[in-house]
Amino acid sequence: MNPQQYRLEDLARLVQGECVGQADLILKGLASLDSAESRHLAFVNGEKYLEQALQSKAGAFIVTADLKDLLVEHQNFIVVANPYLAFAILTHTFEVKHTEQGIESTAQIHPSAIISDTAYIGHYVVIGANCVVGDDTIIHSHVSIHDGVEIGRGGLIESHVNLMSCKIGDRVRIHANTVIGSEGFGFAPYQGKWHRIAQLGSVIIGNDVRIGSNCSIDRGALDDTIAGHLNIVDNVTLTGMSMVTNNISVAGTYSSGIGLFENQKWKRTVVRLRQLADVPLTQLVKKLDHMQAQIESLESTIKLRK
Amino acid sequence: MNPQQYRLEDLARLVQGECVGQADLILKGLASLDSAESRHLAFVNGEKYLEQALQSKAGAFIVTADLKDLLVEHQNFIVVANPYLAFAILTHTFEVKHTEQGIESTAQIHPSAIISDTAYIGHYVVIGANCVVGDDTIIHSHVSIHDGVEIGRGGLIESHVNLMSCKIGDRVRIHANTVIGSEGFGFAPYQGKWHRIAQLGSVIIGNDVRIGSNCSIDRGALDDTIAGHLNIVDNVTLTGMSMVTNNISVAGTYSSGIGLFENQKWKRTVVRLRQLADVPLTQLVKKLDHMQAQIESLESTIKLRK
Amino acid sequence: MNPQQYRLEDLARLVQGECVGQADLILKGLASLDSAESRHLAFVNGEKYLEQALQSKAGAFIVTADLKDLLVEHQNFIVVANPYLAFAILTHTFEVKHTEQGIESTAQIHPSAIISDTAYIGHYVVIGANCVVGDDTIIHSHVSIHDGVEIGRGGLIESHVNLMSCKIGDRVRIHANTVIGSEGFGFAPYQGKWHRIAQLGSVIIGNDVRIGSNCSIDRGALDDTIAGHLNIVDNVTLTGMSMVTNNISVAGTYSSGIGLFENQKWKRTVVRLRQLADVPLTQLVKKLDHMQAQIESLESTIKLRK
Repeated sequence: MNPQQYRLEDLARLVQGECVGQADLILKGLASLDSAESRHLAFVNGEKYLEQALQSKAGAFIVTADLKDLLVEHQNFIVVANPYLAFAILTHTFEVKHTEQGIESTAQIHPSAIISDTAYIGHYVVIGANCVVGDDTIIHSHVSIHDGVEIGRGGLIESHVNLMSCKIGDRVRIHANTVIGSEGFGFAPYQGKWHRIAQLGSVIIGNDVRIGSNCSIDRGALDDTIAGHLNIVDNVTLTGMSMVTNNISVAGTYSSGIGLFENQKWKRTVVRLRQLADVPLTQLVKKLDHMQAQIESLESTIKLRK
Repeated sequence: MNPQQYRLEDLARLVQGECVGQADLILKGLASLDSAESRHLAFVNGEKYLEQALQSKAGAFIVTADLKDLLVEHQNFIVVANPYLAFAILTHTFEVKHTEQGIESTAQIHPSAIISDTAYIGHYVVIGANCVVGDDTIIHSHVSIHDGVEIGRGGLIESHVNLMSCKIGDRVRIHANTVIGSEGFGFAPYQGKWHRIAQLGSVIIGNDVRIGSNCSIDRGALDDTIAGHLNIVDNVTLTGMSMVTNNISVAGTYSSGIGLFENQKWKRTVVRLRQLADVPLTQLVKKLDHMQAQIESLESTIKLRK
Repeated sequence: MNPQQYRLEDLARLVQGECVGQADLILKGLASLDSAESRHLAFVNGEKYLEQALQSKAGAFIVTADLKDLLVEHQNFIVVANPYLAFAILTHTFEVKHTEQGIESTAQIHPSAIISDTAYIGHYVVIGANCVVGDDTIIHSHVSIHDGVEIGRGGLIESHVNLMSCKIGDRVRIHANTVIGSEGFGFAPYQGKWHRIAQLGSVIIGNDVRIGSNCSIDRGALDDTIAGHLNIVDNVTLTGMSMVTNNISVAGTYSSGIGLFENQKWKRTVVRLRQLADVPLTQLVKKLDHMQAQIESLESTIKLRK
């Protein structure tokens, strides 16, 4: 899948490291110490991996100077201060890049939409009126972009993403099947009935935001908390299956997806979750501390009376 | 995005309120007190927003009679008993309405399907054999409707929704990327093995139901609990990312999607969740109460012996 | 929707049961005891359903020999040792089978992809370069299959599924809107900043795996835990809305989707969840046990001093 190949000294240069050994060794990928073969570059993330590194069949290793001296049986190295960071940088070198530009013939694009010449629009994408797609942005198949949505430069929008009532910044990566700007839920209670509030707000996503697969980010009603907009600042990462109903005003990584449990344990966990609403957790901890103090007081009273 | 404009007195009439001030003032939207400009209508939800209302640049305000008297620096009002309800009603007035009807040329519709002339079927929608789509129902792009599914009148089905083995009532709103009627999980245990039960049931959704984005509602097996069908009654709201595997027989709002946590806190929360199955929560609370009683009994015993 | 009809004795033979009564009785489906009509076959899952079985209008019943003797008012039976297992087997007989083969005209398939002649590819499916789809595999509409993905024989891939960087075994069922192989999240911390690690790994799914709707299975970075691949062994079931970020090395059923809560209760539950990170649950249980022991010790001390 990846035809890219690099010489050891070129890779060393990319991470500002020292090339030791066969400078023109051809490497075709990164691999872990255990699975690496002779055309792979592996990295040694500290002394605790020394034994694995000694056994590894990798053609070359990203190491610190200290580690290099311990790996006497190996010949080819990229020596850096921080091997993990160098590895992180090189993953981008070996990543398969999307190089296509242009609009697939099956995409349906409203005449009033403005699509950059350097963007890529995949098969069966639907783009509505007055939309904008910026330079170098890649939109995979089956994406649905509703009227008025604007997307900045250098973005990646994966398949089956749904964008409504939103404005997306630069270098934003939105993974598959995520929904942005669908209608949130607002109700005005009156005389025992709930009256639906149509959500007139929108979602504003800053620059350098990453949003995992199967996330939902609802647009808000207009109210005093969010002034009509749900706003996500620059440099935010939302991991997979997160749900967003409020502003995110501090950069960082946010989550609400739960990883797997074995099914029987999960069923017991959900039973506990159903009890949780009625268990005053923090109060319970305080009560316990209070009781502990009472017991100790009783103990010393009894001791004194001996 | 919204070319609609209304005169103040017309908006007042829509909510059966009193128009005070410039009757022909043109308003183009609703806004919060803070973000409103001169062409916006804002609402004041009680005295605690008085200071914000005084500072607001809104062209007109929805208020109670009492609040109006306090906002001496403003001139234009809609006076009602319940400003929040009036606001809820007017959100529908300013909501962008879908006015298109008919079937996009790229939709694939089985010849045996019956589609109302007043319905709208978006690009790349696929509709199977013997399906029915009622009057004024709007189906966004990329929706997949499998054989035999019936949808009532006045519905909204957003992009990438998947409908299988189900019957949908009138005025049902299903938000993007939700899956209804996919196969639930049933297994018959026998001699240490699990035998899959094919799920022959279906999902029946009543009238005036709203289902958020990225929800899953599985069809059931046929069994004594659900008599072959999973049934959701009228007037149910399912918020985003909810999962439904059982009947809903009482109208109301239901949820199971979790909002965002900061990632490090979330990781600690999930660690606790993994412990939760083995913590007998309600028993623990009872035990604590019992121990409290024991301590108090000890304390009074000791007091008596002084 | 299901034109299949079977004679009672033929159904009995399929489950190696004894046919009692009218051997040529025509049955058109399975139903629960309560909803069954005269052309339905129902099953009696133990004596506790005896009263319901006596009242049932089903044309025939799957029973044990003991149960048959108690159902004196009914005439037609399939007598087996395990009625629930027989029912599970017969659900497959009555299940509507997908019988179409071939490729819909609107599917976009890269010339280098290899599609079995006995596979079915639905409308608007997009299949990338070097993909493989095995015999008898069924792919519903709007599925997106990216470059290099291989799918084995006898699989079912429902609508809006997204497959990237993955290899899928034989007889794998993936329900609607699930995402496999989207990019997981990896960051290398350096000087207070986070550097994104491009995820070069892939997802490998074994044979006989079932994956519910709206699940996310992320591909990993390459690291020592997963050697570049996230691996799911044979015979795994993932229920709806599960999230997978690690290997699954033991066959079984796994979950992380939460079923519905009434909305107000859910809000209280989420408040508790937000406290949970700071409540040392297992420690708390131990502390409670320790305090219980202290109290008992105090009680016996006091008793002794009487």
